[in-house]
Amino acid sequence: MLNQIRIVMVNTTHSGNIGAAARAMKNMGLSRLYLVDPIAAVDEEAIQRSSRAEDILDNVVITATLEEAIADCGLVVGTSARSRSIPWPLMSPRQCADRAAQAAAADNEIAVVFGRESRGLTNEELHLCHAHVHIPTDEAFSSLNVAQAIQVLCYELRLASLPAENDSADEARWGVDWDYPMATHEQLNGMLQHMEKTLVEIGFLDPNTPKQLMSRMRRLFQRAAPDRMEINILRGMLVAVERTAERAHQKKGEED
Amino acid sequence: MLNQIRIVMVNTTHSGNIGAAARAMKNMGLSRLYLVDPIAAVDEEAIQRSSRAEDILDNVVITATLEEAIADCGLVVGTSARSRSIPWPLMSPRQCADRAAQAAAADNEIAVVFGRESRGLTNEELHLCHAHVHIPTDEAFSSLNVAQAIQVLCYELRLASLPAENDSADEARWGVDWDYPMATHEQLNGMLQHMEKTLVEIGFLDPNTPKQLMSRMRRLFQRAAPDRMEINILRGMLVAVERTAERAHQKKGEED
Repeated sequence: MLNQIRIVMVNTTHSGNIGAAARAMKNMGLSRLYLVDPIAAVDEEAIQRSSRAEDILDNVVITATLEEAIADCGLVVGTSARSRSIPWPLMSPRQCADRAAQAAAADNEIAVVFGRESRGLTNEELHLCHAHVHIPTDEAFSSLNVAQAIQVLCYELRLASLPAENDSADEARWGVDWDYPMATHEQLNGMLQHMEKTLVEIGFLDPNTPKQLMSRMRRLFQRAAPDRMEINILRGMLVAVERTAERAHQKKGEED
Repeated sequence: MLNQIRIVMVNTTHSGNIGAAARAMKNMGLSRLYLVDPIAAVDEEAIQRSSRAEDILDNVVITATLEEAIADCGLVVGTSARSRSIPWPLMSPRQCADRAAQAAAADNEIAVVFGRESRGLTNEELHLCHAHVHIPTDEAFSSLNVAQAIQVLCYELRLASLPAENDSADEARWGVDWDYPMATHEQLNGMLQHMEKTLVEIGFLDPNTPKQLMSRMRRLFQRAAPDRMEINILRGMLVAVERTAERAHQKKGEED
């Protein structure tokens, strides 16, 4: 999908933005940068800001007009603030990425068009687009740096190009790329019982008025979902505490 | 939510990145920037790249250590490439934003921590974090500019702070911020019938062998879902064509 997408920058004035855009694109797996009537050159500043995305800069396509840059595209989306003249189909970056994915699946070339640092795209340029995309911003400060806008769109395009993943926050913790298997409930429970016993031994927990202490500890450890190594470490700690308690008892015995 | 979130940059070397980060934050409605042991100063370059986000720079908090910068935070998320030493809870930017929203709803301060341009965060710094966040990138080119990484996270944080919207792509076209109501089916159908009649009149459509032409036109216009002004324009065009056809007939009549 991503190799069917071209990023089009119109009339860019700062070469640093061209370099930063190339880097942002390459980070997200895009590679095709078009410059329409650029004011800035692909110069040392651009190369320096591209930070080893020079290959993107080497392959830049420069055109005199926007029409040339998008002529063979089945989907052209232009970045825009909210409606200028007549309203135009307007998408969020996520919707834009989904639409791009559909267009790519149907073998289309896709262009996402970004305007001038000073004033974005003109109405005429916007009217060449099938639809517009607006990056949600704070209303009081809505003008993103163009390379930053490209970063956000390329990020969403990349996400749309990846196979759908289970987005559960638990995935971030469980199993995926972890180094030990989760402790079984029996192992976890054994540790908690060991903990309770140890806390009584050291006089911290009064078995007659336990209140909710062990429930809270159970809740904490079950929420943390320890793995087997963590359980082993915790049990080792509890054994060390018990041994210390034994020595204290013996000491006390000696002193009596 | 967003005013409970601080962006923390550790040991930043390029002042331009500080400025660009301030702009990216302000675009997304965040305002609290912390610099831990910065190498770069908040200088002219930073101010220039912040592009009127100077208020963010004016309010920067500078600390000597990361611990100081995050001491009062209930949630600390550090940006990371995939597991370094032992695996750590790892989230995508979207998951991170959802978790931040939950933490904010429970009145916590939240820190999102970004590392050095050259080498990100150290293992020790990463181990101070409750969880890590990884921005999905192309594997072959995974190092984002730090201000770009801040842009992506702030974008996701902003989205998570907004009321849930109907994310249907149709919303982008229907009703919301449009200037005329949609044509009713009767109006649209009337236009298509008018079109068919006109196309026959001008000899384009052969009523005896119509094939699928009008079905395709119907499909196109129904897909475009015209509004009432568009229908009026189309009907006006058809009337003009009909008048032209009449004049052509009269002319022909005169010539016979």
